[in-house]
Amino acid sequence: MKLGSLKSAKSLDGELIVVSRDNKKAVKVPHVAPSLREAIEKWSQVEKDLQKTYEDLNAGRAAQAFDIKESDLHAAMPRTWLFADGSAFIHHIKLVRMARKAEMPPTLNTVPLMYQGECGGFLAPTEDIPQVDFSHGTDFEGEVAVITDFVPMSISAEDALKKIRLFIIMNDVSLRGLIPEELAAGFGFFQSKPASSLSPFAVTADELGEAWKDGRIHLPLEVNYNGAFFGKANAKDMFFHFGQLIAHAAKTRNLAAGTIIGSGTVSNEDMNMGSSCLAEKRTLEQIHEGKITTPFMKDGDTVEMKMLNSKGENIFGTIFQKVRSVKK
Amino acid sequence: MKLGSLKSAKSLDGELIVVSRDNKKAVKVPHVAPSLREAIEKWSQVEKDLQKTYEDLNAGRAAQAFDIKESDLHAAMPRTWLFADGSAFIHHIKLVRMARKAEMPPTLNTVPLMYQGECGGFLAPTEDIPQVDFSHGTDFEGEVAVITDFVPMSISAEDALKKIRLFIIMNDVSLRGLIPEELAAGFGFFQSKPASSLSPFAVTADELGEAWKDGRIHLPLEVNYNGAFFGKANAKDMFFHFGQLIAHAAKTRNLAAGTIIGSGTVSNEDMNMGSSCLAEKRTLEQIHEGKITTPFMKDGDTVEMKMLNSKGENIFGTIFQKVRSVKK
Repeated sequence: MKLGSLKSAKSLDGELIVVSRDNKKAVKVPHVAPSLREAIEKWSQVEKDLQKTYEDLNAGRAAQAFDIKESDLHAAMPRTWLFADGSAFIHHIKLVRMARKAEMPPTLNTVPLMYQGECGGFLAPTEDIPQVDFSHGTDFEGEVAVITDFVPMSISAEDALKKIRLFIIMNDVSLRGLIPEELAAGFGFFQSKPASSLSPFAVTADELGEAWKDGRIHLPLEVNYNGAFFGKANAKDMFFHFGQLIAHAAKTRNLAAGTIIGSGTVSNEDMNMGSSCLAEKRTLEQIHEGKITTPFMKDGDTVEMKMLNSKGENIFGTIFQKVRSVKK
Repeated sequence: MKLGSLKSAKSLDGELIVVSRDNKKAVKVPHVAPSLREAIEKWSQVEKDLQKTYEDLNAGRAAQAFDIKESDLHAAMPRTWLFADGSAFIHHIKLVRMARKAEMPPTLNTVPLMYQGECGGFLAPTEDIPQVDFSHGTDFEGEVAVITDFVPMSISAEDALKKIRLFIIMNDVSLRGLIPEELAAGFGFFQSKPASSLSPFAVTADELGEAWKDGRIHLPLEVNYNGAFFGKANAKDMFFHFGQLIAHAAKTRNLAAGTIIGSGTVSNEDMNMGSSCLAEKRTLEQIHEGKITTPFMKDGDTVEMKMLNSKGENIFGTIFQKVRSVKK
């Protein structure tokens, strides 16, 4: 099934909706759960009701179904307790470390890289990316991610896969100019990772069908930049699968229901697939052309992200964001 | 006023209580807000009602006041959207970096160190600290912290001080054995910073009186380890004050109402004040005695933290935790 959140004047969590398979219709379900965050917390109690509503909606039987208005849609889950972002595409790690002349971590192939990102207020999928200072080097990062149930501390990677409830895509906004100094200080990302946006819809595994296997989504993430093709890297190339990322996050702590685990920037070695962030393209330009020609994002630049299934259907809806300059 | 949260079978946010100045009585206020997290989100609407209840409670006029049972108390705010932990005591930074033979960050005196910590489920103030593997080097860290209202992006340090709503103390549990490898990989702390505990009570600035000035709490944090004196470092020695820490956190993002900003381990240069974590004591042993004699925490070890005002009154209630081994 597909779920989403309407923007709401009443709650920063938004208002839970069930969304039709074709992304065109929705129905509110306040009797089931007020928000997606709260639905995840009692998933075993609400899943059947939500699924039934989804089937009714797809069959044209749902009472009070309405047409989706893009501007009414918030991030699939507008806020949550933990966003643990991995960096599971080794090719991406190699390129961005090359760009900032940083060494590869000695545990590259054995321990996932992961940091905690902002999750107290995600951007809506069509919300502007606010920028206070363009010297920060504004970049997008196309990622796939999962939303988990409660995960107990020290879970195995195999058991962790069973805790995945929903899938999303996201734009992990990154401020490249702030990263070298932050990482040099030793405490990792903070200011360099502002609010990210999530896709409008979160979907269950059955919506992915055969594309969900081995703990990875075997589909390309389409990224368009200022209206032109930018990347189509396949998310199947995760070195660590989602079960391993969840288990890494849960090694010494329980994970709250509603935890989002990100894949890191989707990246393939095949250059024909393009990139899912500007940093990669810039590094490739430096390597292959001897100089960087692509700047970071400027006021008014737009980025679009979506993932289509093998039938060409848009699974998660579309992230489409414009960078907007804001005064300090 | 003093606020706290009762453990609740109905909500992971706990149940909001107003607590008497002497920490002995409490009253539930479901008509004002169900939880402290939700009260902070509409602070301007609820502050007066809470204050009135507090005055009635202290005057013995509050209906349905009840005696506080320590075991019923959760962390003052059991979960929230962001825990941004600074490291504002330079003496602590010097000692722990010395211990792991790491260089001092070049921006030590100009940019606060800060990371995002676990906030999806704090430990209660008397809850055991669960440990899956004692090779992780379990340590406590005594900190002071503030809870903020909504903070807009790019706020100044001066304006940020006005966004502080409540004060707490906390035990930031740290797994020292995991830190060197995590920091070497470049993404900062994750597994090395499991769930922390918060004091039972969160208080407004007026409860601190003259001790709250220059953006710092001018009082010693008492730490006892296995029943004996361990430290009494004064929290006034923060190099960066709380306004600066909040402004650092908010440089490129809005902070959700309910954000917790931690001071980092309270630490004074005067060795007579002891320490607020084992890592400091161990480093001082290495320097002054040539060898480390204090081990990290073992099964059954206890740590106690509290902060008394100039009249000897316990402001935040007491954190008292035992380390407990749990099976993987």
